[in-house]
Amino acid sequence: MAGRAGGKPSMPTVGKTAPAVNRTVADGRVGDAFSLPTGPVDLAAIKPNATPVGPKRKKQAAKLMEKISVELAGLQEKLYAEAMGGGRRSILLVLQGMDTSGKDGVVEHVVGLVNPAGVHLVSFKKPTKEELQHDFLWRIEKQLPPSGRVGVFNRSHYEDVLVVKVHKLVPQRELTARYPKINDFEARLAAQGVVVVKCFLHISKEAQTERLLARLDDKTKFWKYNPGDVAERALWPAYQDAYALALQRCNTESAPWFIVPGDRKWYRNWAVAALLLEVLRAMDPQYPAADFDPAAEQKRVAAS
Amino acid sequence: MAGRAGGKPSMPTVGKTAPAVNRTVADGRVGDAFSLPTGPVDLAAIKPNATPVGPKRKKQAAKLMEKISVELAGLQEKLYAEAMGGGRRSILLVLQGMDTSGKDGVVEHVVGLVNPAGVHLVSFKKPTKEELQHDFLWRIEKQLPPSGRVGVFNRSHYEDVLVVKVHKLVPQRELTARYPKINDFEARLAAQGVVVVKCFLHISKEAQTERLLARLDDKTKFWKYNPGDVAERALWPAYQDAYALALQRCNTESAPWFIVPGDRKWYRNWAVAALLLEVLRAMDPQYPAADFDPAAEQKRVAAS
Repeated sequence: MAGRAGGKPSMPTVGKTAPAVNRTVADGRVGDAFSLPTGPVDLAAIKPNATPVGPKRKKQAAKLMEKISVELAGLQEKLYAEAMGGGRRSILLVLQGMDTSGKDGVVEHVVGLVNPAGVHLVSFKKPTKEELQHDFLWRIEKQLPPSGRVGVFNRSHYEDVLVVKVHKLVPQRELTARYPKINDFEARLAAQGVVVVKCFLHISKEAQTERLLARLDDKTKFWKYNPGDVAERALWPAYQDAYALALQRCNTESAPWFIVPGDRKWYRNWAVAALLLEVLRAMDPQYPAADFDPAAEQKRVAAS
Repeated sequence: MAGRAGGKPSMPTVGKTAPAVNRTVADGRVGDAFSLPTGPVDLAAIKPNATPVGPKRKKQAAKLMEKISVELAGLQEKLYAEAMGGGRRSILLVLQGMDTSGKDGVVEHVVGLVNPAGVHLVSFKKPTKEELQHDFLWRIEKQLPPSGRVGVFNRSHYEDVLVVKVHKLVPQRELTARYPKINDFEARLAAQGVVVVKCFLHISKEAQTERLLARLDDKTKFWKYNPGDVAERALWPAYQDAYALALQRCNTESAPWFIVPGDRKWYRNWAVAALLLEVLRAMDPQYPAADFDPAAEQKRVAAS
C-alpha cells in the first residue's frame, strides 16, 4: 500500500456487501513492492530492470500469469455482477509512462485477460479544440468507468501536468494549481467507490533506444513509430522531472501511485496483473443476492 | 457468402491497400454454411443444434479455437495498423438472439480473443428518453466503430424491428419503413468501409428453458436472471416471426445475416470466431508503409 510518501495509512474497512464508499487499494506484497519511497521521488534511484517481488525469470512469469488470469477473470465477473445487483464500485487503472514504456503492451496482455464486457478502455490523445475549451478534467470525467467495470486509461489527466509542464503549455500558476485539483478529483472518485490504481511504467532511456530501433527494423512495426517521438525523447530529463513531481504530489491515500519496473516486458505485465489482482482481492466483490424467489421462478420458467 | 435469399452475388474485389470502399463479407465454408436459405426464412426448419461445418465435438472445437485465436489476433492487429496508416476499414459484428442465446458468451469467448485496444464494444439496452426523441438509428450512428476497430454490437438497431414489432411500440407504417431504412443505413456503412457481419444466435426454446433454470440453480448466476424474461419467453412464437422477417428483409449483399446454431455453446463460439476469421482473411488488411525514412530515423534515434 502506497500511502503518503510511503507511509502506512490506516486502511479503510473493506465491506463484504458492495459499500457505496470504498477506498481500498493494493495492500499486499505487490502493492508494497511498488509503492513510492519516502521523501522526494528520485526516479534515477529506482532501477527500471528490478524485480523486487514475484518472478525472476520470463518462464516463471508466464506460469504465474496463467494462474493470475483465472483468478482475475473470476473476480472481475464478481465485480460486474455486484454492480448488476446495485453495487457502486469500480476500478480505474491509470497507465502512464514515456513512449515505448509499455502502456499498449499492458492493455494487450493484462487488460486482455478479462472479459471485454467488463472493461472500459480509453486512450487519451492530444486534446481536441473542443476539449481545450474546457477544464482539463472535463474529458476525463466523461470517460470514468461505470459501476462494476475495470476502467483503463492509456494516458490520462496526468498528461496535463507532464507534456503540459515540459512544453510550458499553461502558465506556471495554472500548472501548480493542477496537482491539488487532481488530488481532489481522485478523492471524490474514491469516495464514489472508484478504486484508483495509478501505474507509472518506469523504463530506462536505453530500453527506449532499443524499442524505437526495433520498430524501425521491422516492417510490421513501422506503424508504431512516430518521428515526433525523437523530439520528445530529447526532453527525457525534463519528462523525468515532471514525472517525479507528479508522482510525489499526487501520491495520496485514496489514489496511490505505483512505480512498475518496465525494462523487462514480462515483468511489467506480471506486475500490473498482480497489482490488479491484489486490488480485486482486497475489494472482495460479492455476487448479489436474488431479488426474486428462485423456487417460484423455477416453476414459472418450467410452466412457460 | 449470404446474398439475397441465398443467391451468390458477384463479390467486389478486395483491395490490397486499404480501399475506401469494401463490401467484403465472409465468402468461404463458414459463411456459406450459415447463410440464409432461399425463399422466406423458416426458423423452425433450421436446427439450433446443427453442426453444418467445422467441429463435431467440444474437444475438437477447443483445439480449433486455439489456432483461430492466434490468426485472429494477428489479422486484427493488421487491421488496426492499416487504419493507423490512414486505412478506413473496420468491422461491425452485430449479435442478436433471444434471451440466453449466448450474446454475452460470444463477447467473452470470441471478442475476448483479440486485443481490447482494437475492439469497440457496445451493449444496447432499452432506449433512454433522450434516444426515443430521435430516429432509431441516431444512437446507433454514434456508436459505429472507428477505422481499424472490430465493432461489436450486443443487440442493435434490430431491436427496433424485433421487440418493437412484438410489442407494437410503433405504428405498423413506421415499422414497415424501418426495414428499408436499415438496409440503406447498412449499405452506407459498407460503402464507407465498414464490413457488417450480422449473426443471429439461433436457440431452441428447450435450450432457453435449461439455461434459465441453470441461472436459478446457482447463486453465482442469479444476477443473470431477470424475472421479466419469462414474460418475453411467453411471446416466443411472435419473436421467432419477427426474427424471420428481419432476417429475410435485411439480408443484403452489403450486410448479410448469418444464422448460427446456438444450442451448443462450444459450437456457437467456434462458429462466430471462424466467421470473423473468414471475414478478416477476405479483407486481407495490410501493414502500412513507412511515411518516413527508416534508415535516417535509425540514425536520429541512435544520436538522440
